[in-house]
Amino acid sequence: MKVKLISNILDANTAMAEQNRQLFKEKGIFVLNLMSAPGAGKTTLLEKTIEELQGKLRLGVIEGDICTTQDAERIAAHGIQVVQINTDGACHLDANMILRSAQTLPLEEIDLLVIENVGNLVCPAEFDLGENLKAMLISVTEGNDKPTKYPLMFRESRAVLVNKLDLQPYTDFSLDILQKDMEQLNPEAKIFYISAKTGEGVADWCQWLVERVSK
Amino acid sequence: MKVKLISNILDANTAMAEQNRQLFKEKGIFVLNLMSAPGAGKTTLLEKTIEELQGKLRLGVIEGDICTTQDAERIAAHGIQVVQINTDGACHLDANMILRSAQTLPLEEIDLLVIENVGNLVCPAEFDLGENLKAMLISVTEGNDKPTKYPLMFRESRAVLVNKLDLQPYTDFSLDILQKDMEQLNPEAKIFYISAKTGEGVADWCQWLVERVSK
Repeated sequence: MKVKLISNILDANTAMAEQNRQLFKEKGIFVLNLMSAPGAGKTTLLEKTIEELQGKLRLGVIEGDICTTQDAERIAAHGIQVVQINTDGACHLDANMILRSAQTLPLEEIDLLVIENVGNLVCPAEFDLGENLKAMLISVTEGNDKPTKYPLMFRESRAVLVNKLDLQPYTDFSLDILQKDMEQLNPEAKIFYISAKTGEGVADWCQWLVERVSK
Repeated sequence: MKVKLISNILDANTAMAEQNRQLFKEKGIFVLNLMSAPGAGKTTLLEKTIEELQGKLRLGVIEGDICTTQDAERIAAHGIQVVQINTDGACHLDANMILRSAQTLPLEEIDLLVIENVGNLVCPAEFDLGENLKAMLISVTEGNDKPTKYPLMFRESRAVLVNKLDLQPYTDFSLDILQKDMEQLNPEAKIFYISAKTGEGVADWCQWLVERVSK
C-alpha cells in the first residue's frame, strides 16, 4: 500500500517533469539539477560558477531549502535572478515546485537555470525535475564510502564534482578509490576535482557546462 | 491529501514508538538515536564509543543504511551485537523497522542500544523510534549554516557533537557562531567538541552518556 502510493507520487512527478522539460525547451533554457549532502559546498560552487560564467551565459537559480532564505540571499548578492523554494520540511524538490518557481522568473532572459536541490543524498535523486543534466558534489571530508552507500545519486549524475580538495591532505580520502567506484557505478560520468573555496578546477567545470548548454 | 497522509504515517509511527519504548523499558535498555548528515562521522564515533565503554556498559547497535552492510561490518568487527536495517531507498528509520530489528538482538544482554540512523539532516528527526535520547553530529567541514537551515534536528537533540575538530584550523567554521545558534534553537542541549578520528573529546561524551544510562 505504502509502496504503491510512493509509486503513484513518482509517476505524477514524472508526468509533470515532462511538462517542465517542454517549457524549458520552448524557452531555450538548459536546466542543471545540482545535488549533494548538506554542507558539501553547493552554494559556494554556485557562487564561483556564477563568477566564471559572467558574460558567457545568462544564469537563473532556483534555491531549494527546508526553511531559510540564506542560500538565496548569497546568490542574489551576485546580481543573479533567483527564486527560493521553502520546502517546509520536505527533503527534496519535486517537479511541481520547480514549475511554480520557474514561472516567477524572467525565463526569456535565462540561458542556464541551476536548481540547487535540498542537501540530501537520498531522495533528490528519485525526483525528475525536468532538468537536462544532473550533477552532484561529494566533498572529500565525507569519506570514500558514499558512492557505494548512496549509489542512486552517483548513477544518475552525468557529472560528479569532488569538492574540498584543499582539505584532502588532512583526510584519508582516496581519489583512486573514488575513481574505481565510479567506474563500477557510472563509467560515463565526468569527474571534476575542485575546491569551490579556492576556485581550483572550477574553470574546467564551467567550460564543460558551457559545452553542454551550447549543444 | 498528501499532508493528511503524512500525518497519518507519523501518528502510526508514534504509536509504535511508544510500544518500543515500553519494550526497552521492560528490558532495562537505554536507547540512543544517533543522527547526522552523510559523512559526518557517526560510525567512526560509534567505534570510538564502543572502545571507551568497554567494561562499563554492554552495547548493542542497530545500523540503518540505504543498501549496504558496510557500517554494520565495521561495528561487528568490534565484537558488538549488531543488526543491519537496509531501508531499500528510504531516507530515515521508523519505529516499525526498529521493533523488527530489536527482536533479533539478545535484548537481555544489552544496557545501551545505539541506533545509527540514515545519514540525512531532514527526515530522521521527524520519526520517533522509541529512543530515550536523540543525539546528533555536525562536522565542522559542513559549515556554520546547518543549525539554522535544519533546525528540527538541532532542536530535538539533547546532545550535539561537533566533530572533525582536527580539521577546524583549515576551515572557516566558528565554534562561537555554533554556540550562539544553539542558544537560540536549543539552549538545554549539551555540546561536545570532538574528533572521532583522533579520539579527542570522546571520553567526556561517553562519561555523560554513562550518567544518562545510569539514571
